[in-house]
Amino acid sequence: MSAPDGRVVVTTDVLVEGRHFRRDWGSGEDTGRRAAAANLADIVAMGAVPTGIVVGLACPAELEIAWVEAFSDGLRDECALVGASVIGGDISRSDAIFISVTAFGDLEERAPVLRGGAGVGDVVALCGRTGYAAAGLAILSRGFRAGKAFIDAYRRPEPPYAEGKSAALAGATSMCDVSDGLIQDLGHIAAASGVQIDLQRAAFDVPSRMVEIGSALGQDPLGWVLGGGDDHALVATFPSSGSVPDGWQVVGTTLRAADRDDAPPVTIDGEAPTMAGWNHF
Amino acid sequence: MSAPDGRVVVTTDVLVEGRHFRRDWGSGEDTGRRAAAANLADIVAMGAVPTGIVVGLACPAELEIAWVEAFSDGLRDECALVGASVIGGDISRSDAIFISVTAFGDLEERAPVLRGGAGVGDVVALCGRTGYAAAGLAILSRGFRAGKAFIDAYRRPEPPYAEGKSAALAGATSMCDVSDGLIQDLGHIAAASGVQIDLQRAAFDVPSRMVEIGSALGQDPLGWVLGGGDDHALVATFPSSGSVPDGWQVVGTTLRAADRDDAPPVTIDGEAPTMAGWNHF
Repeated sequence: MSAPDGRVVVTTDVLVEGRHFRRDWGSGEDTGRRAAAANLADIVAMGAVPTGIVVGLACPAELEIAWVEAFSDGLRDECALVGASVIGGDISRSDAIFISVTAFGDLEERAPVLRGGAGVGDVVALCGRTGYAAAGLAILSRGFRAGKAFIDAYRRPEPPYAEGKSAALAGATSMCDVSDGLIQDLGHIAAASGVQIDLQRAAFDVPSRMVEIGSALGQDPLGWVLGGGDDHALVATFPSSGSVPDGWQVVGTTLRAADRDDAPPVTIDGEAPTMAGWNHF
Repeated sequence: MSAPDGRVVVTTDVLVEGRHFRRDWGSGEDTGRRAAAANLADIVAMGAVPTGIVVGLACPAELEIAWVEAFSDGLRDECALVGASVIGGDISRSDAIFISVTAFGDLEERAPVLRGGAGVGDVVALCGRTGYAAAGLAILSRGFRAGKAFIDAYRRPEPPYAEGKSAALAGATSMCDVSDGLIQDLGHIAAASGVQIDLQRAAFDVPSRMVEIGSALGQDPLGWVLGGGDDHALVATFPSSGSVPDGWQVVGTTLRAADRDDAPPVTIDGEAPTMAGWNHF
């Protein structure tokens, strides 16, 4: 593998059937795309450019070859979106399907953007959608027959791959992809940076179609938007609102941690997040 | 991760409980050492110097934390033998234990030694022991109470890590570690290089203790030596016997594939390998 920068950014993820994916909720190709996307998004969230992935797969003897081929196609096609490739792998037998993906990226001589770099008074900005995959997962879990856009978002997330580098070039002080849910992932940035983060409720527009699905399923759609993972949006902090690139939306600010001793790491309009559902994820 | 050469050598392996290891056949630390050793040996077999590994682990909720900690210690300690480190990982729940290790290496500005570079008339040489881990596995499988040295060899292989670089510097034309068994791994070199390989039976000395264990278990110990994997010895081809480094033993030669149309890729004294047991692995 080429590493022109002399440094390589690495990330790894494990996916277990029944826990991270189900074969009846998405095709082999969907699963390959999701597995690759989760790792590629993590690479771009460091401000790096993905170069390749290696894949470990353990699966039952009775698994159809067609599923494995489609999975492999999904990995390849998702990598192709960012100019990366599948550079190796290992396959073994097991009772359930286990997938591990390790992805690599090149920093192009930039400093990596980490979680611990946010300063007090930084602007928090988001790029890409959140809550779509969580809504899709809720729909699939209930066997509900509507909301194709959300189901598609769960099956094939569309991380804003090009925006990681844009944010790095714009001077992002910290960044991560939203894989656990916005509040939880921002909690990681807050903890690593020693700041607190306050989000502005008004910055989050819940799409009307998501409101309808939430209503039909008896769930709070704002919980999906603020607590749902798997869309792999990017969230970052910038020194000022003037440095936020096009395509990113300001959603909050960072505060001095010591000023709010009893507050949680991430608040919404100054209050602890309490909407039903968000802590469900 | 640092990549001073501008290139990174990568390998990945999947280990599944019940298939590649059993918790009653080795400790968590043994399992960590074996998982790391398999990948580090693969890196040195390319003539590279291992720099780090990333690890994916999926395991049941009821697995003792002590096992996971010992596993982690084993990974770290095996890496330390070659100056590498554990640089990241991911952990998840699952019904069985699933381990994936991805290892990285630096080529120090040398060309990688691959499987496909053997030429006709090259000398085949071996460094490190073979058959020990296979004998240990046979002992453990039968619940036999003897042969501690072999059981230890199975639990904690001791690949000749430093010898990969030595072979590369000595001009090795092809190399791999013995993970599937000598005949099978040489078969990969033969196929990739377009040659056939003839081993000299007299070059293989079966230790008397291994003969005794084989006799007690009713198995051919030469089958372990020529067909057993998991010791991670190194096998390589060199342009001449004069270029074989100290510590390596000449065990065969390469022949023009076209001269022996109906012969298998690897022979012993010109004959197809037929000893009982070798194809058992």
